[in-house]
Amino acid sequence: MKTHLMTFQNTSIIMGEDLTESRILEDACKTNTVVLLADNYVAELYGKKLQGVLQKAAKEVFLLTFPEGEASKSRSVKESLEDQMQAKGLGRDTTLIGLGGGVTTDLAGFIASTYCRGIPLVLMPTSLLAMVDASIGGKTGVNTPYGKNLIGTFYLPQTLIIDFDFLQSLPPKSLGEGLVEVIKVALTCDEDLFHQIELLGESLFKVGHSLKEIVKKACEIKLKVVAEDFEEKEGMRRILNFGHTVGHALEKFFKYEMPHGCAVAFGVIAESYMALEISLLKKTHFDRVVKVLKPFLEKRNFDIKEVYEYMALDKKSKNQEARFVLIDSIGQALPFDGEYCTSVEQEIVLNALHFIREL
Amino acid sequence: MKTHLMTFQNTSIIMGEDLTESRILEDACKTNTVVLLADNYVAELYGKKLQGVLQKAAKEVFLLTFPEGEASKSRSVKESLEDQMQAKGLGRDTTLIGLGGGVTTDLAGFIASTYCRGIPLVLMPTSLLAMVDASIGGKTGVNTPYGKNLIGTFYLPQTLIIDFDFLQSLPPKSLGEGLVEVIKVALTCDEDLFHQIELLGESLFKVGHSLKEIVKKACEIKLKVVAEDFEEKEGMRRILNFGHTVGHALEKFFKYEMPHGCAVAFGVIAESYMALEISLLKKTHFDRVVKVLKPFLEKRNFDIKEVYEYMALDKKSKNQEARFVLIDSIGQALPFDGEYCTSVEQEIVLNALHFIREL
Repeated sequence: MKTHLMTFQNTSIIMGEDLTESRILEDACKTNTVVLLADNYVAELYGKKLQGVLQKAAKEVFLLTFPEGEASKSRSVKESLEDQMQAKGLGRDTTLIGLGGGVTTDLAGFIASTYCRGIPLVLMPTSLLAMVDASIGGKTGVNTPYGKNLIGTFYLPQTLIIDFDFLQSLPPKSLGEGLVEVIKVALTCDEDLFHQIELLGESLFKVGHSLKEIVKKACEIKLKVVAEDFEEKEGMRRILNFGHTVGHALEKFFKYEMPHGCAVAFGVIAESYMALEISLLKKTHFDRVVKVLKPFLEKRNFDIKEVYEYMALDKKSKNQEARFVLIDSIGQALPFDGEYCTSVEQEIVLNALHFIREL
Repeated sequence: MKTHLMTFQNTSIIMGEDLTESRILEDACKTNTVVLLADNYVAELYGKKLQGVLQKAAKEVFLLTFPEGEASKSRSVKESLEDQMQAKGLGRDTTLIGLGGGVTTDLAGFIASTYCRGIPLVLMPTSLLAMVDASIGGKTGVNTPYGKNLIGTFYLPQTLIIDFDFLQSLPPKSLGEGLVEVIKVALTCDEDLFHQIELLGESLFKVGHSLKEIVKKACEIKLKVVAEDFEEKEGMRRILNFGHTVGHALEKFFKYEMPHGCAVAFGVIAESYMALEISLLKKTHFDRVVKVLKPFLEKRNFDIKEVYEYMALDKKSKNQEARFVLIDSIGQALPFDGEYCTSVEQEIVLNALHFIREL
């Protein structure tokens, strides 16, 4: 696959291989001063190398790191990183590069959007999840004790660099995190893509031409949805939240120790189960959903009542009642008068939670 | 003066008297749930009354308060208020009303812009400073140990309600805070307005028809400048920062115990002095600047070197060097190739600081 270029609003999106060594990164940073933000693990693996590349191009580069993991997506880590930047006297003429998975791209985006009321942002996702989901569409944020992504902004990078080389070093489990979001996107608006995934079967987990084509397709779909409804005001963008009302509640129950992909896989099945029980979704389609997502589930027990209560905190809630994205067939999310989500009877929601707990 | 209506981007701006009792506030809140944010002092004075007005209109209203004063414009107060909102299970369908001075409108704006990635905001400034400056133009933010407004966003209220009745209860000192910003705006782009202010002399401090006309004019000018350059990317908006490179550094030196108006008055004089020394500004014009601003100064000693160093942290800095907005006559800020600010020789900056210290 050759280098592939797209633009979205003012973001240049560059996709391909072997991008980090090239002049692409250098060109993406328009300022002399650059902060390269990565977690400890990614800093060790790629951060120092990229710092060298930029230093060769005569940039002043500060490599800032934070502890690996979801717990770093917090207001206190944000504050500590801001303070480190301020202590170096960095002003608005500083480019922030977020290098890493979704935690890093979300955190970097949020910092860039509020540092001096906004500094230039470049994102280099290193995980599949960040490539197809976190780094596309401008959502930034941190978690709070009350839930995920509850505090954040909409802020677009100037440049998004998707370098497939990063995928080579990912363990299959991490790849799975991203694949679940690809499957989710396919289920809500692209039957063909879902069918392509079904056909691949186990070779879905191999980083090769097919996977890259699927990633490219998923990115394109997500950009199209986001372009329709950037700040999630019209409703359309909500379809990207399919599986997430349940998924986020599960993550909260497991104190963010359940992988996001696993939680969303459970969530997509649960929310498809609701559609099945309201007679929106055919049983044959529901079975296909379960079959494709089964490899991503890790069996765990949870308290149904507690998970149910957490759902009300979801950002799609209306009058403190949880709402769900529902599909009526593979590749088709229901519009519900442009809201793209709806409340569901308590009994059906509880049945869905029972169903996934027994899977 | 009758109720005066303007719109800026998607903000409705309503100016006039006796607005709080009317349906204006009720109509401004499109959601059933409302958070009314005010400091302890304003909450006691007006908060409970407004809560009652909204409750009569069948809104669920939570009155959240925080300690009065600039120290509350912090990341920790923001976090605590967010947590209180989350503990009540409030989601995206909540309108946040910021009722108070600049601290409150800046804090409310920042919270609204990041809570669930953005909730509807209504601003009701109660101080002159907030009416003519803080609440207009979408700048939000908090201070950090490194400086003022270093972390924040650009976020516009849906409705801005400027009720001149609030001014009646303000002490002259608080009125002065706002007048300095009006004078600053006049100096950078409206000679007529400056002349009007000169003619008023001491009656400038009387809340009457003339003051209201001046406020209305200042708001219109600020809106025009902001419309040209909303996110301060083009440069034009920087003229609103006249006097603030020095002013902010002074405030930092005095640990934010020097009133903002006083600091900016010193700053405007210092930065006019620089223009005088570079032979941009005539001595007669400079003398008029000093004369109008003198009533706003409170004599205090400061360390020149320390204040000089703080300036480099200013958001207009380039390559870690402070920059200043300069005027070449009353009502005329210089464009400097569209940057609207420039660096100034160290010796001249130090002379300017000496000059204001001796005033």
